[in-house]
Amino acid sequence: MKALVFEELNRVKLKDVAKPVLVNETDVIVKVKLTTICGSDVHFMQGHVPITPGHTLGHEYVGEIEQVGSAVKDFKPGDRVVGASVLFCGQCERCLAGHIYRCLNGGVFGAGPEYGGLNGSHSEYMRIPHADASLLHIPDELSDEQALFVGDILSTGYFATEKGSVIPGDTVVVFGAGPVGLCAVITAKLFSPKQIILVGRKDEFRLEMGKKLGATHTILSSKEDVLETIHKLTGGEGADVAIDAAGSETTLHQASCCLGIGGRLSIAGLPGPTASLPMFELFSKNVRIEMGLVDLHHMKRLLKLIQSGQVDLSPLITHRMKLDQMEEAMELFASRKENVIKVAITP
Amino acid sequence: MKALVFEELNRVKLKDVAKPVLVNETDVIVKVKLTTICGSDVHFMQGHVPITPGHTLGHEYVGEIEQVGSAVKDFKPGDRVVGASVLFCGQCERCLAGHIYRCLNGGVFGAGPEYGGLNGSHSEYMRIPHADASLLHIPDELSDEQALFVGDILSTGYFATEKGSVIPGDTVVVFGAGPVGLCAVITAKLFSPKQIILVGRKDEFRLEMGKKLGATHTILSSKEDVLETIHKLTGGEGADVAIDAAGSETTLHQASCCLGIGGRLSIAGLPGPTASLPMFELFSKNVRIEMGLVDLHHMKRLLKLIQSGQVDLSPLITHRMKLDQMEEAMELFASRKENVIKVAITP
Amino acid sequence: MKALVFEELNRVKLKDVAKPVLVNETDVIVKVKLTTICGSDVHFMQGHVPITPGHTLGHEYVGEIEQVGSAVKDFKPGDRVVGASVLFCGQCERCLAGHIYRCLNGGVFGAGPEYGGLNGSHSEYMRIPHADASLLHIPDELSDEQALFVGDILSTGYFATEKGSVIPGDTVVVFGAGPVGLCAVITAKLFSPKQIILVGRKDEFRLEMGKKLGATHTILSSKEDVLETIHKLTGGEGADVAIDAAGSETTLHQASCCLGIGGRLSIAGLPGPTASLPMFELFSKNVRIEMGLVDLHHMKRLLKLIQSGQVDLSPLITHRMKLDQMEEAMELFASRKENVIKVAITP
Amino acid sequence: MKALVFEELNRVKLKDVAKPVLVNETDVIVKVKLTTICGSDVHFMQGHVPITPGHTLGHEYVGEIEQVGSAVKDFKPGDRVVGASVLFCGQCERCLAGHIYRCLNGGVFGAGPEYGGLNGSHSEYMRIPHADASLLHIPDELSDEQALFVGDILSTGYFATEKGSVIPGDTVVVFGAGPVGLCAVITAKLFSPKQIILVGRKDEFRLEMGKKLGATHTILSSKEDVLETIHKLTGGEGADVAIDAAGSETTLHQASCCLGIGGRLSIAGLPGPTASLPMFELFSKNVRIEMGLVDLHHMKRLLKLIQSGQVDLSPLITHRMKLDQMEEAMELFASRKENVIKVAITP
Repeated sequence: MKALVFEELNRVKLKDVAKPVLVNETDVIVKVKLTTICGSDVHFMQGHVPITPGHTLGHEYVGEIEQVGSAVKDFKPGDRVVGASVLFCGQCERCLAGHIYRCLNGGVFGAGPEYGGLNGSHSEYMRIPHADASLLHIPDELSDEQALFVGDILSTGYFATEKGSVIPGDTVVVFGAGPVGLCAVITAKLFSPKQIILVGRKDEFRLEMGKKLGATHTILSSKEDVLETIHKLTGGEGADVAIDAAGSETTLHQASCCLGIGGRLSIAGLPGPTASLPMFELFSKNVRIEMGLVDLHHMKRLLKLIQSGQVDLSPLITHRMKLDQMEEAMELFASRKENVIKVAITP
Repeated sequence: MKALVFEELNRVKLKDVAKPVLVNETDVIVKVKLTTICGSDVHFMQGHVPITPGHTLGHEYVGEIEQVGSAVKDFKPGDRVVGASVLFCGQCERCLAGHIYRCLNGGVFGAGPEYGGLNGSHSEYMRIPHADASLLHIPDELSDEQALFVGDILSTGYFATEKGSVIPGDTVVVFGAGPVGLCAVITAKLFSPKQIILVGRKDEFRLEMGKKLGATHTILSSKEDVLETIHKLTGGEGADVAIDAAGSETTLHQASCCLGIGGRLSIAGLPGPTASLPMFELFSKNVRIEMGLVDLHHMKRLLKLIQSGQVDLSPLITHRMKLDQMEEAMELFASRKENVIKVAITP
Repeated sequence: MKALVFEELNRVKLKDVAKPVLVNETDVIVKVKLTTICGSDVHFMQGHVPITPGHTLGHEYVGEIEQVGSAVKDFKPGDRVVGASVLFCGQCERCLAGHIYRCLNGGVFGAGPEYGGLNGSHSEYMRIPHADASLLHIPDELSDEQALFVGDILSTGYFATEKGSVIPGDTVVVFGAGPVGLCAVITAKLFSPKQIILVGRKDEFRLEMGKKLGATHTILSSKEDVLETIHKLTGGEGADVAIDAAGSETTLHQASCCLGIGGRLSIAGLPGPTASLPMFELFSKNVRIEMGLVDLHHMKRLLKLIQSGQVDLSPLITHRMKLDQMEEAMELFASRKENVIKVAITP
Repeated sequence: MKALVFEELNRVKLKDVAKPVLVNETDVIVKVKLTTICGSDVHFMQGHVPITPGHTLGHEYVGEIEQVGSAVKDFKPGDRVVGASVLFCGQCERCLAGHIYRCLNGGVFGAGPEYGGLNGSHSEYMRIPHADASLLHIPDELSDEQALFVGDILSTGYFATEKGSVIPGDTVVVFGAGPVGLCAVITAKLFSPKQIILVGRKDEFRLEMGKKLGATHTILSSKEDVLETIHKLTGGEGADVAIDAAGSETTLHQASCCLGIGGRLSIAGLPGPTASLPMFELFSKNVRIEMGLVDLHHMKRLLKLIQSGQVDLSPLITHRMKLDQMEEAMELFASRKENVIKVAITP
């Protein structure tokens, strides 16, 4: 079957690889119906996070069950499903302690061997271990595209919002107007903050998209003074919550400084190995910082919100392509050309 | 094999039953090394909670793995384990929402069909579904008796304490000096309350045991005025936390009334179908009430505390008997004679 | 000056009383600009909660500062303010422990001597102790009517919602379609539940109002089967949160039974002295119950949400009258005639 | 009267200054009975945190009320009190939002003008604003020395422990064996962690003191490999909670790296202006970071724990001196000579 594999630094390739087979009784084989490129795919391609040559990329997808292991209870061939980007078993010590994002039997699809070595969704078929724990049935009334982001960026946005403990009346600042930042805007809105300020570096069309999705203000950081603008918008009190979905030292610094007394900093964008933080500033404001790999406990809840129409991510899909065009799609996505936000890829 | 089964109202019997076999790939068969009678067994026998005739009782045990299903990852024959009284899979919607006590694929061992119909531990062998989720390895340095209570009464005591949000300096009142009440005393002590007041109806030896385990004061409710004594002990401010491990309308009423402003009522003893609560009293003190089936998320943590010597439940075992004496043991336990607290039963 | 005082059971009267004067350095005297009748006023009049004859009723108001004590820091004559219905000092042991609703130096305006004996707002002037703690400046852009409910029913609705821990995607059921129930609908909506089901006994216009304010479904309990309807609306899973703003044994029972596993019951309506609760039902679903006097910590936050237009309570004001018509207003409000919800009264 | 004032960089001096007088109706004048030097005093003296020349240092004290303002309710001349190091009014917007550590009408005693310009306790008398909110009566059975640390280092230790969310069975690592680190050990013990590992740079007598107060293990970081030792002590799983009471980039780095999945980092020691943190490490373990100025909400609770004997800080007082020897005392404390931990100073 065809799959997009990592070849070497800055090079991915659509190749013929072996079709996956059932390994454990709790596995299923899924035929991929829709996959989409994530910022992490670019991180792997560009070497920010290591990955093994020959590994298949991709972890955000919708599929149809083709085959089920004998111990699988909740799924049967033909079922339409959306899956978790970060796999978990629900049964190991870590999962039972609530840390399903670092399941001892899990991993990240389409990521390197230190994350479980699971081949990804940019392919015709996938093997999904612990299917009962990590797959969700898609309600009939939802299209594949509507369900597509539940297992990764939507959950990540929700996770970031939750880690920021947004409550009604707050001012929330989101740094980074990429797909995760935009999902943070959408999910922050669910808690009725007074203001959602979206900060982007240069892509004005992404800020425009942010406004459609709920941002009350946008700041183009290449042209405006970020901290001064937030200072004004909050009457000098500072923001209640800052969500960093950009992952740079600059945005971490701005996120730290824009907060008011008792503010909360939620870091959703993978930061570099180290970063210098304004510790005295953070300390004197009693800031709480939370961060980490997405916790997928809320997938089912998010699917409900899509069903009820309270969350609609379809505007994020700006491009639709075929698996055959996968290399081209990666290039487009990485370049941010053509006002691309998300590319949805069918077989 | 031999097993203690429910025959009819007020009658249990040690009978020969079929030895269990593996049903699903995720099952194990456990040889029971040690089992112990719980208050719930008496509830079943006496008809307070319905159960099917012929069903094997028991849900607090230590065993040795005899056979494992092909999908079991963490256990192999010969492993010594302690199990959960309330079974959970870790993978269904309820488990992923945190409600493992009402797992869609689980149940209560030794309880009736509406709780999953799982045969219990008062027998030579048990079948344990979802073994990876619900069994724990026992560290070598712990004896069977030391580990015995982790999957039921110790977890229940901890759960009750946690639901009461005990914090250092609090006054905690525990109603009911049976095994669960005594475990609530032990676990409340872990949070360094200023006072732990144990209230019992008549068994003075149980109050004495409570003092050994950490109670700073005891009240014999048949002879002393419960509310007046607590009023005095708290300088008129009322208690911070009340844990009801007795489950009667009388204790629920006292527990409600002994609390101060902002108090927390934690109900660990199975109450009757309905109870009249002093609502205006509770309302005007902004009391929070929590209750329910034990949440077994903390088994591993509790095992650690036994290992470190911070929790020692061995004094609770007042009697040791053989499986052959099981009927007699039930009678002894139900009668509360001979200063019995817990009976440990070997094959 | 004129004030509405409690005369005797079922009788209130507009009388001439002495104008209040400053007593402590931390007091202010407020000229009442707008007051409104609350369900509690009716409770006092009808003897459900005791009050002293001659006491002035009312605790929901907007006023203008007329005079300030020498220790008052944040207010000066002429300032327009909205006040707390339940007074607190912010400095006593209880306030510092977070229990400002039972402040040792506070009380409830317009309530009896056991609640501090503070005269109420159905009058021309009021004395407000601890003014710095318990008054809020009203932003210029808000009218008196827009700010009117911040210190009582809006805060009570928010409190009830918060105690229910509503999160996005939940099903919330509100029992009672009076002003507090309607405020619970408005505030529950701030957390983006999937469904808000409003249950009322007979007043269809109140259910209609509930729909305008955010209810997705309404149930007229005199004509429909409440539990069956909720069962259907939740696909048999039960509700996540039930808010009882009606305060009857019947609604408490329904609220208990409509919940699913892990449900939360929030009691906002003053219940009777005792109530029989379905304890086994609550226990087997691990339900959490919270209740009590309103916690006014969020007044400032709520004012922000009114400013931003996210909360608009103006539709609740169905009648506008003068202080001279106060007796008539009480009668109208108590009778629920003329589709009355709230009556706003100017001097 | 005599007072220890900041003269210039690295120089403090005992001088004659004006005795304070009542300014506001809510003030009291306190005669200092016992004061003690804090690490912050050294920070001020050495210029790490700016302060105005002529300002009186000190913020940890016991005193006797000499005079009360007319609006003070809870105190009268002759009362023995312990006070908050960080002053708060309980009534401003920040206090009501829970941020009493940055009260709009408050400040830090003995700190510079940007922290409220309040003269400190290294003197014969002090003026205490908002006395009702920020002073506590000392129970008769407690000596001055027993109560001395409630308003600063004990509260700081408790705050650090609380921010780390220590629960029974956890492994807690405390970095820094100074007075705050030792208080973190004492207060962490209240939550029954399995292990408390105290890390000190060089003062072995402080590590010995840590063991007396509850540390189960100590590490001398100048001689042992900190991370390797913690790795071994936790069986490779890492710690649950790290409390940094040292405030250096080195300890922040070690604290970050010693944590396991889902670990919590609590920063109690004032860090430098900026610090480089190992962000990828923290991110991949989903670490939560909390920090800040001490929250004094728990003073009363801590006093209770001293009363009950559950907390005993008297071993920390290694030296007793007179106000006349204050300059010498500062030198001793700053030098860490003579195995000094805390110096108690009487008039």
